Amino acid sequence: MNKVVIFGVGLIGGSFARSLKKAGAVGSVVGMGRSAASLQRARELGIIDVIGVADAGGGGCTMAEALDGADLVLLAAPVAQTEAILAAMAPHLQPGTVVTDAGSTKSDVVASARRALGGKIAQFVPGHPIAGRETNGPEAAIDDLYVGKKVVLTALDENSAQDVERVAAAWRACDAIIHRLTPQEHDKVFAAVSHLPHLLAYALVDDIANKPHADLLFQYAASGFRDFTRIAGSSPEMWRDISLANQSALLTELDAYLAQLTGLRARLAAGDGAGLESVYANAQRARHQWITAIEAAEVPPSQDQAD
Amino acid sequence: MNKVVIFGVGLIGGSFARSLKKAGAVGSVVGMGRSAASLQRARELGIIDVIGVADAGGGGCTMAEALDGADLVLLAAPVAQTEAILAAMAPHLQPGTVVTDAGSTKSDVVASARRALGGKIAQFVPGHPIAGRETNGPEAAIDDLYVGKKVVLTALDENSAQDVERVAAAWRACDAIIHRLTPQEHDKVFAAVSHLPHLLAYALVDDIANKPHADLLFQYAASGFRDFTRIAGSSPEMWRDISLANQSALLTELDAYLAQLTGLRARLAAGDGAGLESVYANAQRARHQWITAIEAAEVPPSQDQAD
Repeated sequence: MNKVVIFGVGLIGGSFARSLKKAGAVGSVVGMGRSAASLQRARELGIIDVIGVADAGGGGCTMAEALDGADLVLLAAPVAQTEAILAAMAPHLQPGTVVTDAGSTKSDVVASARRALGGKIAQFVPGHPIAGRETNGPEAAIDDLYVGKKVVLTALDENSAQDVERVAAAWRACDAIIHRLTPQEHDKVFAAVSHLPHLLAYALVDDIANKPHADLLFQYAASGFRDFTRIAGSSPEMWRDISLANQSALLTELDAYLAQLTGLRARLAAGDGAGLESVYANAQRARHQWITAIEAAEVPPSQDQAD
Repeated sequence: MNKVVIFGVGLIGGSFARSLKKAGAVGSVVGMGRSAASLQRARELGIIDVIGVADAGGGGCTMAEALDGADLVLLAAPVAQTEAILAAMAPHLQPGTVVTDAGSTKSDVVASARRALGGKIAQFVPGHPIAGRETNGPEAAIDDLYVGKKVVLTALDENSAQDVERVAAAWRACDAIIHRLTPQEHDKVFAAVSHLPHLLAYALVDDIANKPHADLLFQYAASGFRDFTRIAGSSPEMWRDISLANQSALLTELDAYLAQLTGLRARLAAGDGAGLESVYANAQRARHQWITAIEAAEVPPSQDQAD
């Protein structure tokens, strides 16, 4: 690709840029964002080559200039900005440009994109790289963040096979492994294995922190608690947005979990040791199988699982 | 101490023996247990010096011989065996011997000890070393498991100060840090920060494993899920026993958590972003403060926090 435009040059967007450059898969990278300081830092670090329009007085090239002749655009800004960015892009989006994103939810992003892009929706190929997000900013960007990681593409009926392939090829150049789901499948899956656990971890820490003897409790929390609650160290704003964006699927998973807990409570209250043990043992077995499968499936980079 | 007797020579009991030996704090260690093979392995590994009575045909010294002249006895067998072991010990327990344990719950252990030891209850000083338990057997025993770790002693009104000090000194020789709570305080604290998280992690994995599309879900579970559910890899039998042993405090914590989740569900269903964010942000802040405090409090070994 000659030209890639990235909105948001933090961990996700910056690592995409670094990985493409390392692979020799891109000529020039234009960085766009709201923070002139972050963009300047990203250029100093060699993550981007050109600074796009930062704000009214920030200088840099305009949206039209940034998009002129672009092969690929990645949206890696906070998901709440997606619709506004796409709406600002729409008038300047040329037929040869493909747009993708890195949002953790997909149905809402697709709805935003349809509103913002209208007749140009076919140029938008939604995506979600499954990579850690507990650090941020240009300094956090690394050139191997995506090695061996999954990237889920949730292609639309309107997308052409060539446009989807352009996005897949870019991620493959980062040594990521391409998976495909529909936006709805994606959101159901991640409600269960990611969004619900985040909500549960936040809920537990808040519950404990609000007790009168919270200090005593935290004093005895050990490594199991630390791991269980690690995801409660994530950005509250980001997870508020994800929770609301995936509200319906998350409510479904939360209700299933509440029913599960209510059942376990009944077994505990009844002193039903066999009943508790069957749940614990099934969970232990399933987790062991999962870990074993993960370890067996750790394929070398640049192999492609589903494409 | 000249002579220490340990029931259960796996990770907890075996590491206690190794640590005391490393510190030069013990003359001879007698290992007791149900598995003759484990005891022989423990002696081969230099963890114990003498094998106690293993079973009817297993040979080794008798209970009376094992306890004769013992300074300290540690119960590190599964908690469900506590009462039977104490009952078998009671007739042979000499006035100069102090008995302690390593169980994860304390109120139930104290009740068992009162039944089993009767008039000798003053010789039993309950304890709980806060150290990992995901490996087991004599091979897992190491001589630095307790370095810098907390050991909670839940002394009884009947205990003499000297007897409590003998147990504390033994753990200090392992470079552990002594804390003190009542048995009831202990069980409430660990219900909140350990037992409830285990139940929640088991519940989530079981919930997902029982869904028709479990394979698809596990395929996309990533590092956050892995950490959140690590404690669901623990022994189902052990956690069944802990759940039942601490039933009352665990029910209290589970009910508080169910109320918390029900409140979060209402905020999510109402699209109350500010309400969700306030819970998430409070949790993130509390966890950050906790981690910061842990890191600041990492005292060098052999300093004693509460004694």
